[in-house]
This record gives sequence, C-alpha cells and structure tokens, in this order.
Amino acid sequence: MGGVQPAESRTSVVGRLLVLLERAASRGCRLVVFPELTLTTFFPRYWLPRLDDADGFYEREMPSPETAPLFDRARELGVGFVLGYAEMTPAGRRFNTVIAVDTDGSIAGYYRKVHLPGHVEERQLAHQHLEKYYFEVGEEGFPVVELAGLKVGLATCNDRRWAETYRVLALQGADLVAIGYNTPVGGVPGMAPEPHRMMEEHLLSVRAGAYQNSLWVLAAGKSGFEDGQRLIGGSCVVTPGGDVVSVAAGDGDELVVGTYDPRVAEPYRAELFNFALHRRPEHYGLIVERTGHGEPVVETLAGRS
Amino acid sequence: MGGVQPAESRTSVVGRLLVLLERAASRGCRLVVFPELTLTTFFPRYWLPRLDDADGFYEREMPSPETAPLFDRARELGVGFVLGYAEMTPAGRRFNTVIAVDTDGSIAGYYRKVHLPGHVEERQLAHQHLEKYYFEVGEEGFPVVELAGLKVGLATCNDRRWAETYRVLALQGADLVAIGYNTPVGGVPGMAPEPHRMMEEHLLSVRAGAYQNSLWVLAAGKSGFEDGQRLIGGSCVVTPGGDVVSVAAGDGDELVVGTYDPRVAEPYRAELFNFALHRRPEHYGLIVERTGHGEPVVETLAGRS
Repeated sequence: MGGVQPAESRTSVVGRLLVLLERAASRGCRLVVFPELTLTTFFPRYWLPRLDDADGFYEREMPSPETAPLFDRARELGVGFVLGYAEMTPAGRRFNTVIAVDTDGSIAGYYRKVHLPGHVEERQLAHQHLEKYYFEVGEEGFPVVELAGLKVGLATCNDRRWAETYRVLALQGADLVAIGYNTPVGGVPGMAPEPHRMMEEHLLSVRAGAYQNSLWVLAAGKSGFEDGQRLIGGSCVVTPGGDVVSVAAGDGDELVVGTYDPRVAEPYRAELFNFALHRRPEHYGLIVERTGHGEPVVETLAGRS
Repeated sequence: MGGVQPAESRTSVVGRLLVLLERAASRGCRLVVFPELTLTTFFPRYWLPRLDDADGFYEREMPSPETAPLFDRARELGVGFVLGYAEMTPAGRRFNTVIAVDTDGSIAGYYRKVHLPGHVEERQLAHQHLEKYYFEVGEEGFPVVELAGLKVGLATCNDRRWAETYRVLALQGADLVAIGYNTPVGGVPGMAPEPHRMMEEHLLSVRAGAYQNSLWVLAAGKSGFEDGQRLIGGSCVVTPGGDVVSVAAGDGDELVVGTYDPRVAEPYRAELFNFALHRRPEHYGLIVERTGHGEPVVETLAGRS
C-alpha cells in the first residue's frame, strides 16, 4: 500500500482497500494480507505527551461503521483477509493488533503484537519509533488460524526479524505466515543505515523465516511517503525454499499475487527440516531461560583427558 | 578447501592445512577456521554395514602424531584455529567434533555436533548422508570459547540451518560463530534441487544467523570434488549486518580473509536486536516443549466480546 497521510479518513483508506480486494478477487485470490496499522498513518512516529491525544488512531470495535464495507464485500467475494490496526480494548488497553477473517466472513482470530520495537520515551528525533509507548506487549503469543482452508500464522512487522516467531508458528503447523509491516528507510533509533539496507534486511528476514520453517510468507508493507517519512515497501510472496516469487514493483497501492502450492514445502519437511527427526530441544533451553546476553554456560570439554 | 580423496593420508591433508595456516599468518590473521571433517573425505556418504570398518576415519587423540605439526606451527605463529574431525572417544563413542585451539596453543574447547542430518539406514542412493549412523548427537550443546581474545561460538555444517544454534550462542555472548561444513550439490535425500539452490540456501542461512544475532559468522566448507561428489564451497565471512564481505572464489585450497570489527555489531545490539529490551521468552515456550509439528495451542481470541 502507498502511504496513509495523517489527515486521511478511515472511509478513504477502506475505499482503497476495497479496490485492492476487488482486484484480488478478480485474480482468483482467496486470501489477502493488508499491512500493519493499515487504517491510519504510522502514528508511533509522533511523540504525544498525553497518551489520550492518540486515541483517534485506535479502533474500539472491529468491524466498525467505517470498516464494515470491507468485511461485507470480502464475505460476498469469498475472500479471507488479514488486517492490522491499533486496538483499544473496552478496558482501555492498547495493542498493535491483527484480525484474521475467513472466506465466509467469520472472524478466525486476532493477534496482538509481541515484539514491539523502538522506545518508550521521547528522544527528540526527527522520526521516532514509539511503539513501546503506544502499545502493550500481546499476552497470547503467536496464533495459527484457519483461513481459506490453510493454517495461517499471524505475526506483524518487527516480529519478522525474530527467528522465534516463525518457529513457534511452524511448530503449530502453519502452512504460511501473514506479516504486515511499516518500515521507515531511516531505520530504528541509533542507526543511520544506507537506504538499501532496510530492504535487504527485510528480505533476508522473511526469506530465512520461510526457508528455515518450510512455510510460505506473505509480507505486506506500506510504501511511499507518510507525512514526509519514506517507507521501504517490498511487499512480497516467499516460498518455503526462501525464494521471493512476487514482489511489489511500485510505491503505491498495488496487488502482489502468488500461487500457494503445498508441494514446495513437502521435500523440505520430509527431510532437511523434518523437525521431529532433527530438532534437539534439549539444547535450546537458553532461548526461554534468558532474555538478554549472558555468560557462557555450555561445557566446552576443555581439559578433559 | 578443495576435496579430500578417500586415499589421501592425514599427513598430506595436514600439509595442505599448514600451507593455509602460513598464508593466514602472513596476512595477519589471528584465527583460522577449517572445515567440518577436515582430515578425511566426507565418509558419511558411504554405507559400511559394519560400523567398525569406518574406524580409520576417526581420530582417537588430538593432537595425534599426524596432526601435531598443525598445532605446533599454529602456536609458533600465534594463530588460533578451529578444526572439525570425526572423534572416537576412549569408550568407543563416535561424534562429529570440532576442536578450538587458542593463539597460545592451549585447547579452548570442543564441540560435538548437535544437528546431525540425513539418515541412519542404507537407502541405496548414489550419494547417501549417513551422519545419524556414524555419529551420536553431542550431549553438551553449543559452547562459546575464547579465541584470540574473542568469544567464539562453535557449530558445524547442518547446525547453520537451525536458528536455535545462533541464538543459543548469541545468548552466551558470542562475538562470532565458526562453522565448518560439507554440503553436496545434490542436496539431502528426497531432494533434487537445482544446483544453485544449495549455495543460495547456505548463504541465506549464515547471513540470517549473523544478522538476527548481531554476530560475525566464519563459514568454511570443502569445495570441488570428493570421490566424484561435488561440494558447494562458498566459504565466507559474514558481518553482523548479514553481509557477505569475503567469499571463496575457487574450488580448491584457498584463504578467505575478513577483518573483525566490533563496531559493526554495536548499533544492532544497542537497538534493533537489543535482546534484553525486545525478546519475549514467555512466548517462545513451544521451541523447547515440542520437537516436531503439532496442533495450534495459542489462543486466537476469536469469539471474544
């Protein structure tokens, strides 16, 4: 998707999503993945000292009067979809959330983002990344839902850089992972990467996640400019072999289409990445026992006879 | 390294390693990584119904009379090294092992391979992959040792395709990971990949492991032909940004040199991949609780009010 400007209304954005949805249906698509925080501009770039001043960016119900046309049309067309948005719960809790809607219009599930990047406090940067200020960490973890007859793992944006995301989804039988995102060209605070790096690191992340877990990845990002900030785009379809088979060509609203074929995953799952045969969880303990870096604990056997 | 033929002696192989070691020292290198199962041909391609008939491929001591010249010369030159070989313990146990020797000649540690690929039984294939027959799974896990003043994580070959390998090493503070390997062009049993795929998947694996863990990877493989089987080569130095900065150009014995610079990792570790800030182990439990694929267990929140 092209950028969503701060002044753009929900109704306008939903109109753009409907155009993409119709185009997808006409191409025979049965599942559409929309980006992260699709319905508004990527507001975590703004520092608002009073959190309540951001309330207008959150959805209190889904579907809402403004988003209902998307849900209705998807059901009529028999297309399932995944949509990211900022969620405000009835209790006033804030999450970076994804909703998954099946081809019959039923809600298959929700996901609340686990890996919130950036920072909590203002940093006086031209472009901030305040997701840790605007959202709580999701408490449920990474779900797998049934969409269009496939087992679809849900994750969003920064989750795609963490290998644990894909592994936890694959271990629950995911056939593919749907990932919406917003990634600024400037990188996260503390980095001033060459512009091409952000695309390279995005593609490396989704390709490795797909390959190492024998699953498809559908990655959908915003591109173009949002309020003067350049987003990387790079929406793509990745195979279980780690190949990018379709990728966005432009920086506006665009449909990127791939054909799901379960046979691509089969030889990998049967042999090279046959988890039941090859994984060794007895040696993975630190992954759950530690959060940050620590001292070596594994025996080196040095000094043995 | 180029291939090692079945008839080649330990003494001949060690002579080749000495040439590479001298060349490395003359280039100012302080750490050299040699391949997996460096001292012999990759014998797990052969089916030997009597396991004892393979005994000649294993080392019973390290250093041995044939390998001592490498240890001696490395100490004189002040170069540390990592060397893969087949280990036979005094109790007759068999492991695919790596020894790490520091610049002063002291043994810093050993690693016994965790992710053994392939199969246990004969399959009547032109090229088999019988590591599960010839080796036991290492019991210690992935160690981090001190070499040339750096914290070096040890892993080997197929370990590089498993994201857990790098993560467990990074959580123990590894600055770089040394990985020897042997990868045939033909892939593992059950696959007939296009020849280029094996290189692509190798590079994807080591690049993602480096990037997602903000560490350097030194990957050293055999190339050329071994007993008629083509190996992929692709020895390389990978930065914590996931960039391949040096790579083997040929298919024979060759020195691939990189310059370790801790600054490359620093911005990643400070922000994007600051484990202490961003990792969420409470959502990674399945990684250690499950080995193979299973049913979804994470709550989807569908049906909530």
